[in-house]
Amino acid sequence: MHAQRLADLRAELARLGLDGFIVPRADEHLGEYVPPSAERLTWLTGFTGSAGLAAVLAERAAVFSDGRYVLQLAAQTDPALWERRHIIDEPPPAWLAEHAAGKRIGYDPLLIGEEGLARFTDAGLTMVPTDPNPLDTVWTDRPPAPLDAATPHALARAGRSAEEKREEIAGILRGAKQDAAVITDPASIAWLLNIRGSDVSFNPIALGFAVVHADGGCELFMAPQKIPPATREWLGNAVSVQDRAALPGALARLKGKRVRVDAAGSPAWFAQTLRAAGAEVVAAMDPCMLPKACKNPVEQQGSRDAHQRDAVAVCRFLRWLETAAGRESEMSAADRLLALRAEVRDFKGESFPAISGAGENGAIIHYRVTPETNRALNANEVYLIDSGAQYLDGTTDITRTVWTGPDAPSDELRERFTRVLKGHIAIATLVFPAGVCGNHLDSFARSALWQAGLDYDHGTGHGVGSYLSVHEGPVSLSRAARPIPLAAGMILSNEPGFYLPGAYGIRIENLLMVQPAEFPAAKKPFLRFETLTLAPFDRRLIAPWLLSRAEVEWLDAYHARVAAEVVPHMPEGDRAWLEGACAPL
Amino acid sequence: MHAQRLADLRAELARLGLDGFIVPRADEHLGEYVPPSAERLTWLTGFTGSAGLAAVLAERAAVFSDGRYVLQLAAQTDPALWERRHIIDEPPPAWLAEHAAGKRIGYDPLLIGEEGLARFTDAGLTMVPTDPNPLDTVWTDRPPAPLDAATPHALARAGRSAEEKREEIAGILRGAKQDAAVITDPASIAWLLNIRGSDVSFNPIALGFAVVHADGGCELFMAPQKIPPATREWLGNAVSVQDRAALPGALARLKGKRVRVDAAGSPAWFAQTLRAAGAEVVAAMDPCMLPKACKNPVEQQGSRDAHQRDAVAVCRFLRWLETAAGRESEMSAADRLLALRAEVRDFKGESFPAISGAGENGAIIHYRVTPETNRALNANEVYLIDSGAQYLDGTTDITRTVWTGPDAPSDELRERFTRVLKGHIAIATLVFPAGVCGNHLDSFARSALWQAGLDYDHGTGHGVGSYLSVHEGPVSLSRAARPIPLAAGMILSNEPGFYLPGAYGIRIENLLMVQPAEFPAAKKPFLRFETLTLAPFDRRLIAPWLLSRAEVEWLDAYHARVAAEVVPHMPEGDRAWLEGACAPL
Repeated sequence: MHAQRLADLRAELARLGLDGFIVPRADEHLGEYVPPSAERLTWLTGFTGSAGLAAVLAERAAVFSDGRYVLQLAAQTDPALWERRHIIDEPPPAWLAEHAAGKRIGYDPLLIGEEGLARFTDAGLTMVPTDPNPLDTVWTDRPPAPLDAATPHALARAGRSAEEKREEIAGILRGAKQDAAVITDPASIAWLLNIRGSDVSFNPIALGFAVVHADGGCELFMAPQKIPPATREWLGNAVSVQDRAALPGALARLKGKRVRVDAAGSPAWFAQTLRAAGAEVVAAMDPCMLPKACKNPVEQQGSRDAHQRDAVAVCRFLRWLETAAGRESEMSAADRLLALRAEVRDFKGESFPAISGAGENGAIIHYRVTPETNRALNANEVYLIDSGAQYLDGTTDITRTVWTGPDAPSDELRERFTRVLKGHIAIATLVFPAGVCGNHLDSFARSALWQAGLDYDHGTGHGVGSYLSVHEGPVSLSRAARPIPLAAGMILSNEPGFYLPGAYGIRIENLLMVQPAEFPAAKKPFLRFETLTLAPFDRRLIAPWLLSRAEVEWLDAYHARVAAEVVPHMPEGDRAWLEGACAPL
Repeated sequence: MHAQRLADLRAELARLGLDGFIVPRADEHLGEYVPPSAERLTWLTGFTGSAGLAAVLAERAAVFSDGRYVLQLAAQTDPALWERRHIIDEPPPAWLAEHAAGKRIGYDPLLIGEEGLARFTDAGLTMVPTDPNPLDTVWTDRPPAPLDAATPHALARAGRSAEEKREEIAGILRGAKQDAAVITDPASIAWLLNIRGSDVSFNPIALGFAVVHADGGCELFMAPQKIPPATREWLGNAVSVQDRAALPGALARLKGKRVRVDAAGSPAWFAQTLRAAGAEVVAAMDPCMLPKACKNPVEQQGSRDAHQRDAVAVCRFLRWLETAAGRESEMSAADRLLALRAEVRDFKGESFPAISGAGENGAIIHYRVTPETNRALNANEVYLIDSGAQYLDGTTDITRTVWTGPDAPSDELRERFTRVLKGHIAIATLVFPAGVCGNHLDSFARSALWQAGLDYDHGTGHGVGSYLSVHEGPVSLSRAARPIPLAAGMILSNEPGFYLPGAYGIRIENLLMVQPAEFPAAKKPFLRFETLTLAPFDRRLIAPWLLSRAEVEWLDAYHARVAAEVVPHMPEGDRAWLEGACAPL
């Protein structure tokens, strides 16, 4: 099947006079989750990971993804068709420069940003925009784009009116002497206009584009079928709604204007179209990104509430796990957790596909269980469950690593778990001045592992939205984090790990909210983290001899807080168990 | 005097048809220390700080420097002639853009790099290169350039022959498909050719330029009077020596070649001249920077030896300080330390002007004592001494903060000292994987301070040369460090601090050498720090209740090492004191 698809694409490229073509994972919003109509990389290669790119030449082809997906990439793609490459160690531009120097490589300008495109042109490649996308031409049974309704996101959840938000963005534009900004991230549009949707999995967004003007006006480009009357009324008179097809004309009307476009997050097509229309393109971050990341007090309280309710489902699940070994499987466990969450008030679905990995499957960092890989939860092994939910008042994301028993785990395993836990506590207890960025903090999560010659091959944390994407910019906790300081109200995950391929995976994840730290005498503002997530850590995996007194105190205080906030909401029969799981170490 | 000089310069600018002119502090090597012949900023303005720039217009003029020099700038310059500005808060390009928009501003392309120049052109200014420098035209009694002899740096110190180094650099150029590299940093030339000199203070360098070719050949541009016969023989046949005046012709001969120029570290004149000659300029780091930073085994051992000998002088000085309160001053203390170092084998001078700050003077981060500011060492206060030496086998840099007694310091002071010490220990004990950069580690030095709402306003560490500059690139420990990973053999300072303006300064500095960390089972290479500097910390300032068991163990082990390595070399009468200062906590 995939051989035929690759052959069809090559034939179409030959017809177009192209020597090669790149197929990114992204859709025209450069988003993490894409609708079935935009799953081009999967259609072509079989690879279903959330990040990657294929490069197709006449004689060879390669598919690239990152360290999270090394094993999955190998399992899902045919080595007879595809070279499988690590996208960091052997980046696609270098691979193309080696195998196709001087050749004409096609790309769809709607599926790659200008910064991403520059990495190819900087490598000396001749990049040729295509319209239509040749893959779409040969994908004859491509599904239609989703047309789910956009719905109002109530002020009681959003905390600020859309009018107030538009005025803030307009002020940012006026301050930067920009006439308008193109918004291509549906999460930004959802935040800006206080709407939500269901066009893609796991993210409550409605796919569309917007242009915000410096006078506070806004043009929304979204299929009219997606806007029911109640939503049209909710948007208000200052927002015009036009079909996606009206977008090129609207950009053309910006001739002579200074227009802000996110050079990393927006498809290259926007800047190219604006320049061709005679607009001045200013490359700058999507102006909604930073205000959206800094949750307002209503959103902050919503997140606390959502986490407390989510904790009941998670703690019931952890109790259930106690007797699961030998009876249950990765799939049945994930199903059980989802069923427990479905009982929680305002639950709207998972925030990402649960990673339910027993034994060696836990070592696959972004493992997604399938009927083929489904593994029993055996006795005496490690089980990793990374999951999250969307609630109307907040988005959750939690990972716990559990020992299935009944015997005690080895000291080596406990030592490694505890080094991960020490990294988690190091981040949770940080205090730091305003101005500090994620790349300045990531190493605290790793230092206890580094001391033993260990590490993990992923970032420590990502931003999280407010009933929006569980992966949200602009900040992160990672060595490669953007130079954007952490600020009060941001929500970030804290998820160090350790993975022994073929044996087990360990990850410990809570969400954190950035808060002001009060030092009356301080010369500058300081910040700290408030831990949002509430669920006990498996004490069978903790090696107390590796913990400092301060770390034990943090653990005991955290568990006491879990007991105080969650036990009262647990079913009668689960309360004693949770109290025991939260007892002092 | 300065009024006349400014008037003369303005007259010359008018004669040349220029509306303004910028006078940077740097010389044509963009170095930290400049010879008297290049002290243009001082000649014009009176300001003697190590960083700054003057901007001269017909009707107004401003002189800029950074936070270290606010008071000195105000004291040394005439407010009737000069506006005094903070170079970060009110950068010169913005000042010129405000007062001279659309005007023609002259600059000497030998005194500013392309990156620095771009900040002026990016501000919309019309920057006009001048030749000759109009300031030099009116500086009629300008001292001649130094003509000190360049001398061989013996293989027993350098560890690798100049031929081998040139072959390494040539290999780097061939690998990057570059035909030649222009080397404008005299420290790089000193490393590359195994020579040293004495043209500027504190840095054992001979001023000159070089062009290295991809075939291993090298052209050295240096006044022939600086090359005595022994040095000429030492350089060997593959190195041609030409006068500085031959440089333009040599660059012209690179027509059609790909030539590497350091865009940050080299004057703009080089790239401009090469482009005008038809060469292709490739902006890339000076190829000597990284090999020079990674000391070879002979240099590593030399540094250990130099630090051990330096420690004898420093420990004798610390003993001497015990009875200095009430009798000595900042100047006499610095003199005493210099006299003790002068007794050390292979001592060649200080590696920078000692910072000898008692009480509130210690809070001035880059304090340099003068007869006007000289302060007595009083009883019961904090004294900070930051100093270093050049030895034939290595460069040292150490800071100790001492309580003068006789009473005990306050608990608050001890707490702050101990938070600085905790940061110092956190860096000293780090283990980290290859690939980590200085910006990923800097925060470890600050975390204990941050926990109390405290911080310090400088980087944590800088690279240090091998009998070369005490401030050496390309890596550093700071939030803004360049994205260049730490590597084995690099020497870095570890110098967290805390400053209470008007009261005292605390800084604790040892030099570290990056070493491989051996983990037989590790999946990738790991690194650790070897502490080079040997001198006790003042235990009167330590608050043991703030230290973890591991920190106490590190302190005791460090002090035991100081005792073992230094006591045998101390004068008989100082041994018991040092043993006491190094006893377990």
